[in-house]
Amino acid sequence: MPLIDSGIVLTYGQLAAHTLGLATCWIGMAHGLGMNKEIMKVIGLEGQIHGALTIGYPAVKYLRTPPRAPLNVVGLE
Amino acid sequence: MPLIDSGIVLTYGQLAAHTLGLATCWIGMAHGLGMNKEIMKVIGLEGQIHGALTIGYPAVKYLRTPPRAPLNVVGLE
Repeated sequence: MPLIDSGIVLTYGQLAAHTLGLATCWIGMAHGLGMNKEIMKVIGLEGQIHGALTIGYPAVKYLRTPPRAPLNVVGLE
Repeated sequence: MPLIDSGIVLTYGQLAAHTLGLATCWIGMAHGLGMNKEIMKVIGLEGQIHGALTIGYPAVKYLRTPPRAPLNVVGLE
């Protein structure tokens, strides 16, 4: 399933970038790029865009992760 | 995109299991489970199955990763 494969690739891409001291941001809105022929021509890709990461050296350092609500998970009791 | 989210979840699930000394195997054939009402009833889930991991203590230890052919990647020259 190509979409799941893309999720795996971008997840490992984020982790690999982190090991190089780089920060990433998953651009959710990039899904729509595949519909723009001009942008696809500039990028040099064909087909559907499943996701995109911006990568750079982070300007800030986070001391802790933000709190989040508990996940609603079933089947692991 | 739910399929990409599932790819992220299962990828981190595999890494998390590894930190606990557990090994995992991504069961690609599990996609079809969602079509089997009896199995879904036993599992206690509804909807589509995007993937499944088997998890256990590994019986063997790998000393190296298997060789693989170079990936066909464009746009990173």
